[in-house]
Amino acid sequence: MARPTNRATSFDVAALAGVSQSAVSRAFTPGSSIAEETRQKVLEAARKLAYVPNSIASSLTTKRSNIVALILGDMNNPFYVHTLHAFSRRLQEQGRQVLIFTVDRGADADEAILHLLAYQVDGVILTAAQLSTRMTSLCHERGIPIVLFNRYIPGSDASGVRCDNAAGGRLIAEAFLAAGAKSFAMLTGDPKATTSADRVRGFVERLLEDGIKRSDIISVEGNSSYDAAFNATVTLLTDKNRSRPDALFGINDIMAMGALDALRYRLGLRVPEDLMVAGFDDIPEGRRTPYQLTTVRQPINQMVEEALSILHLDEPNRPIERGIDRPISGKLIWRNTIPVPPAYRWPDGLKGGSESEP
Amino acid sequence: MARPTNRATSFDVAALAGVSQSAVSRAFTPGSSIAEETRQKVLEAARKLAYVPNSIASSLTTKRSNIVALILGDMNNPFYVHTLHAFSRRLQEQGRQVLIFTVDRGADADEAILHLLAYQVDGVILTAAQLSTRMTSLCHERGIPIVLFNRYIPGSDASGVRCDNAAGGRLIAEAFLAAGAKSFAMLTGDPKATTSADRVRGFVERLLEDGIKRSDIISVEGNSSYDAAFNATVTLLTDKNRSRPDALFGINDIMAMGALDALRYRLGLRVPEDLMVAGFDDIPEGRRTPYQLTTVRQPINQMVEEALSILHLDEPNRPIERGIDRPISGKLIWRNTIPVPPAYRWPDGLKGGSESEP
Repeated sequence: MARPTNRATSFDVAALAGVSQSAVSRAFTPGSSIAEETRQKVLEAARKLAYVPNSIASSLTTKRSNIVALILGDMNNPFYVHTLHAFSRRLQEQGRQVLIFTVDRGADADEAILHLLAYQVDGVILTAAQLSTRMTSLCHERGIPIVLFNRYIPGSDASGVRCDNAAGGRLIAEAFLAAGAKSFAMLTGDPKATTSADRVRGFVERLLEDGIKRSDIISVEGNSSYDAAFNATVTLLTDKNRSRPDALFGINDIMAMGALDALRYRLGLRVPEDLMVAGFDDIPEGRRTPYQLTTVRQPINQMVEEALSILHLDEPNRPIERGIDRPISGKLIWRNTIPVPPAYRWPDGLKGGSESEP
Repeated sequence: MARPTNRATSFDVAALAGVSQSAVSRAFTPGSSIAEETRQKVLEAARKLAYVPNSIASSLTTKRSNIVALILGDMNNPFYVHTLHAFSRRLQEQGRQVLIFTVDRGADADEAILHLLAYQVDGVILTAAQLSTRMTSLCHERGIPIVLFNRYIPGSDASGVRCDNAAGGRLIAEAFLAAGAKSFAMLTGDPKATTSADRVRGFVERLLEDGIKRSDIISVEGNSSYDAAFNATVTLLTDKNRSRPDALFGINDIMAMGALDALRYRLGLRVPEDLMVAGFDDIPEGRRTPYQLTTVRQPINQMVEEALSILHLDEPNRPIERGIDRPISGKLIWRNTIPVPPAYRWPDGLKGGSESEP
């Protein structure tokens, strides 16, 4: 395609918009202070003159690309879709954009890291997969901060933000126990991910403390997906050699939703009367009328803010934060899938149902 | 951060991997022919030597960034999450990555386009929002192809791929009529989007052809979201001044799902016995056991392939495709939310329920 021979400059834009050249620069600089009206004038003039600031040319000087890589697993778990949305919205407000890298289930992120380094990203957010210490060092040596989201990697000096998943697993165990459950099943996710392993560990530990026998706690692979959890629930509950457990813990909400639908619509069971169910995450989908899922809320917006503060993209010359692992407490949200014991004392503002995340 | 002083070169990687320098280059070049075993050797050597090909440096020579911008509305409609996933997966297979731009509902994409031009993207996929002809020209003049996904813009020379939404609306009307419906409600989306407007138009035209009166077709704003559709359905069905319609058309599946849950779990109505429901899109969520939604399937993988062929990213010197608008037929998928009339002849392989998209 022919390119325009006379490219408009920021001087032309400033003249047409009736503002200073510095205002033009600020209109296109992330996080700059500029009146919205002035910004609109600049954008309108830029539009008329087909002026486009070249941030890649400028990134060669400033070493900033304004691109942040986000490594995602599959998008079948809405929790990660909401995570992506939250990061994209916040970063875009700062004049940055998200570059997506998808990693297959069970794969490590090393190859994705090699590729993303070629894009000169300003930072990396890892929401799925494992990461070798070598790849972490490779990013850090190049001055590219990494933040792990909703996970940690033992022995790695990559920093991370996560919910205290073990403590959350304990909360679910306590809710089931308070409602009188004596036998339990768990639908688990990727065994290599700390997220699933920690929830399982906290849940089981708390049950054992209460004198529950290990043989009364069944673990079933649910693949972190609705469909796999649905099918695993049908298989588990139609096994003639097993008695029906009192309580089923989907270690994330999307699996608990699959289990609920299998119990009610395939197996004709009532929840919570015949069997209680709980999830983890508090995704908006689990709050819908047919589900009203009792769960542990992950404070996703708070986690996104903390993750971005660890990356400190606005201060690239500050040393990279290493080895931070600051677990955030999740909150138990009572809804309708575990009977609330009469003696239960409601924590402040947590009577379940219609509240949305603050 | 200190940078390594002696950067590994492709020569070092080739020596360590025991392959040619050309194999190293091919291992990092999208779409190159290379044996998987050789590629793994190169990656392993690159890992050990901390070698990273700098695609931005090379993009200054080749003018290719291997970044494709995807403009998204909000992610509350799973159809667009599946779209994002499909594009991301296909582009990543080609060695390209998706850069996400989020546009608010009702906003135009002009500002997003100005920003994305600064990232020197190789192409633009627009799945939401309006776009001025000036912005389209701005991209085209710079040699950046745009493809509209699931929409068209009248009078624009941007090319697009979409389902034949008007014909799909007619299919839903015919299914309702065949099942004996006489009065109708529609939950509509963004009135400025051709997608919603075309589905509504086809649906209404077909009903009028059958002698249905305009006063027996109610239109309600459902905001293309589950929650808004749920609430609009409750409001519509509890309005004492209206009689209950026989059939409700959610012009996308996520609204039809909200309507279904409102009808069954809030209003205590049976679907399809008391009221029939249909959607549009055939998202996997609508295939789940509690929904079993009758709908029109959009062939999303086919649409993604056609969109990428319009962008022809591998042949940047071919002229940009302009003004293409090739509607693809959707298929009616009968499931359980409209009674199947006894005389209905099943098209090949379309007896609803468990099939997944080819």
